[in-house]
Amino acid sequence: MDKKLLTPGPLTTSLSTKEAMLHDWGSRDINFIELNRDIRQALIALINGQNVFECVPMQGSGTFAVEAMIGSLTNTKSKILILINGAYGQRMKKICSYMSRNCISYTVAEHEIHDCNKIENIIDDNKDLTHIFAVYCETTSGILNPIQTIADLAKKKERSLFIDAMSAFGALPLDVNKIHFDAVAASANKCLEGVPGVGFILIRKTVLELAKNNAHSLSLDLFDQWQAMEANAQWRFTPPTHVLAAFHQALKEHLKEGGVIGRYQRYKENCKIICEGMTAMGFKRLLPDELQAPIIITFIQPDHPNFKFKKFYDALSEKGYLIYPGKLTVADTFRIGCIGHLTSKDMHEVLDVVKETLKELDIKLN
Amino acid sequence: MDKKLLTPGPLTTSLSTKEAMLHDWGSRDINFIELNRDIRQALIALINGQNVFECVPMQGSGTFAVEAMIGSLTNTKSKILILINGAYGQRMKKICSYMSRNCISYTVAEHEIHDCNKIENIIDDNKDLTHIFAVYCETTSGILNPIQTIADLAKKKERSLFIDAMSAFGALPLDVNKIHFDAVAASANKCLEGVPGVGFILIRKTVLELAKNNAHSLSLDLFDQWQAMEANAQWRFTPPTHVLAAFHQALKEHLKEGGVIGRYQRYKENCKIICEGMTAMGFKRLLPDELQAPIIITFIQPDHPNFKFKKFYDALSEKGYLIYPGKLTVADTFRIGCIGHLTSKDMHEVLDVVKETLKELDIKLN
Repeated sequence: MDKKLLTPGPLTTSLSTKEAMLHDWGSRDINFIELNRDIRQALIALINGQNVFECVPMQGSGTFAVEAMIGSLTNTKSKILILINGAYGQRMKKICSYMSRNCISYTVAEHEIHDCNKIENIIDDNKDLTHIFAVYCETTSGILNPIQTIADLAKKKERSLFIDAMSAFGALPLDVNKIHFDAVAASANKCLEGVPGVGFILIRKTVLELAKNNAHSLSLDLFDQWQAMEANAQWRFTPPTHVLAAFHQALKEHLKEGGVIGRYQRYKENCKIICEGMTAMGFKRLLPDELQAPIIITFIQPDHPNFKFKKFYDALSEKGYLIYPGKLTVADTFRIGCIGHLTSKDMHEVLDVVKETLKELDIKLN
Repeated sequence: MDKKLLTPGPLTTSLSTKEAMLHDWGSRDINFIELNRDIRQALIALINGQNVFECVPMQGSGTFAVEAMIGSLTNTKSKILILINGAYGQRMKKICSYMSRNCISYTVAEHEIHDCNKIENIIDDNKDLTHIFAVYCETTSGILNPIQTIADLAKKKERSLFIDAMSAFGALPLDVNKIHFDAVAASANKCLEGVPGVGFILIRKTVLELAKNNAHSLSLDLFDQWQAMEANAQWRFTPPTHVLAAFHQALKEHLKEGGVIGRYQRYKENCKIICEGMTAMGFKRLLPDELQAPIIITFIQPDHPNFKFKKFYDALSEKGYLIYPGKLTVADTFRIGCIGHLTSKDMHEVLDVVKETLKELDIKLN
C-alpha cells in the first residue's frame, strides 16, 4: 500500500492513471499523435480558450514550464513587474536573473496579498513596464492571490499578464472570458492529478506568433516547439510517452468528475475537513479563511516541548501519510496538502492519525 | 498487445520496468531519496567512475541533458570544436548558438567518420580551443564514431572532451580508465531500457566544481542541481518520480543481464539478424560492418516502383512493428532499431513481417 501524499506534488494519483503507463508508445506513431492532440485540446478547453489560445507542452517539472514561458515570450526589451509573496514568485525573479530579463518586484509577506492600489502606482511610475507576472495559488503558504483583480488591472493598464498557476490549474477557475491574461504555465501532476514529468503553457495565439528568436534555450523554446507541433503534430525531442499517457487518462477522469468545478468541490471539502479537524485539536493556521486556497494548508508548529517536526513527520509517515515541511521564512510551520486522488474519507483518516500521533508524543494543545 | 518499437527511442521496455510505475512516491520521502541515490551510484559504476565522477540527473529528453551539459560546464570564455556527422552533432551546434558559445565545427558526411589527423590539425590551428564535443553513436545513420581515438587525441592535446552518448550508453563501452573524457550526457530510455522523461550527465568532479554561475538556465543548471542534491539528496524541482522508479528497475535488469557487455551482446546479435536478413532480401545498408553500431541500422529505400516508404511503414505498423523514417540529408532511407527489450526471436519476426509485406506490395529486390 502506497503512502498517501498530503503534499503539493507529486500527488497520490488514481490506479487507472498509473495503469495507463503499462504500455509503450512510438513517439511518431499516429496513436500517440492523437493522444497528444487530445491533451492539448482538453487543456485549452479548460480555460475556454478555443481559437484564441495555443497549448505548448514542455517536458520537465513545473519550473521548466515557467522558465520556458518567461524565456520564450519575453525578450531583452521587456520590462517585467513580478508580484512576490512566496518562493514561487521569488523563483520567477531568479529565472529572469539567469536570462538577464529586466525586472522589478513588489514583495509582500508570505501570509499577505498585494495591495492593488500599490500595484497600480508601480505601473504608473514605470511607463516602460511591459509585463506583470503573478502566482495564482502560492504553494509556499497556500495563499489564494486575487488573480481576477490583478488581471482586471493588467487589462486596464494594457500590460501583458503571465500566470504561474502550477498548484491552481484544474481546480481554481481560470476562464479567459473572465480573467484576461496572455500566458499561463502549469503542470500535469497538480490538480489535474497526472504524474510528474510534463508541464504545459497556454498562450494567447497573437502573443505566441511574435515569440520567434526570444528563447535563451533550445530545449525550452516554446515557439520552436509550437512550430514543430503545428507542422507534424510531433514533439521536437523525445516526449515522456508514459507520463503523457497517464496525463491523457487523468484528464478524462477530471472531466468525469465535473471538470474544474467538480474538482474544486472535492478539494474544498477536503480542505474544510483538515482545517476544522486540526483547529479542533488546537493547531493554529497561518491564513484566515478568505485567503486560504483549497490546495495546501500551512500550520504553525505548536509551541509545545514535545513537538519536534521530524518526529511528527516520521510518525505520520510510518502510519502511511506523508505531510510536507513548511517553506515560510518567517515562522516554523508545516503543511498538509488536500489535493490529489484523495477524498473526505482520507482526510478523516489523516485527522485520526494526527490525533493518535499527538497522543503517542504526549502533546496536548487545548 | 503493444507494437514493438524498432526505433532509437522511446523503446519497448520490460513489463516489470513499466510496473514499477504503479506506485506514487513522495519526492522528499526517504524511500525515494534512496532510490535516487541507487540510480546515481549505478550510473557512475557503469563507467567505473567511482570517486572521480559525479552523476547529475536532469528531467526532460536527451536534448535537455545535452543542453544542460553544455550550458553548465562551458562559459563565454570557452572555445569549442564540435565533430559533426549527423543531426545530433548539428544539434549541439544549435544549442551553442542559442547560448552564444564560441564554437567551430568539423563536419563530414553522415556515412563517414572524422579524419583524426584533420582533428589534430584543427586543434593545432586553434590554440584557444578549450573543448571538443563528440557523438558516440550518431543515431542519424547509426554510425559508430571512434570515441577511443578521439578521446586519446583530446587527452594528448589537453582539451576537455564532452560526449553525447545518448544512444550508446549502457551498451557500448565507456570506461573512464580507458576512454578519457570530462562529461557524458545520456538518457534513461535508450540502451538502459527505462522509460523517457529523464536524462543524466556524468561529470568529472574537478570540472563540476568549477561550474558555478556558468548556466544560462535555472532549470538546466547542473551545478545548482548537484549542490542541492549534495545538501539533502533531494531534487531542486519536482522529479518525474514514476519515470525514476522505472529507471531504477531498468538498471537492476541491466545489471542482471550482465551490464554493458551483456546488453552489447544481445544488441549485437539483434543487429546481425536484421542486417543479414534484410541483405538477403535485397535491401542495401548505408554503412559497412566496421562503422555499424549495434543500435540502429540505416537502409537505402529500394529503387522499385512499388516501394513507397509510407505504405511500407503502415503495413509493418499494422502487423505490430514500428520502424523509423530516415534522417539522412543525402539519400532516401529508413531505419530499423535493434535496441530495447527485444530479442533475436523478435528480430526474426520482424524479418518475417518485412518478407510478407514485400510480397503484399509485390516488391522483389533480388
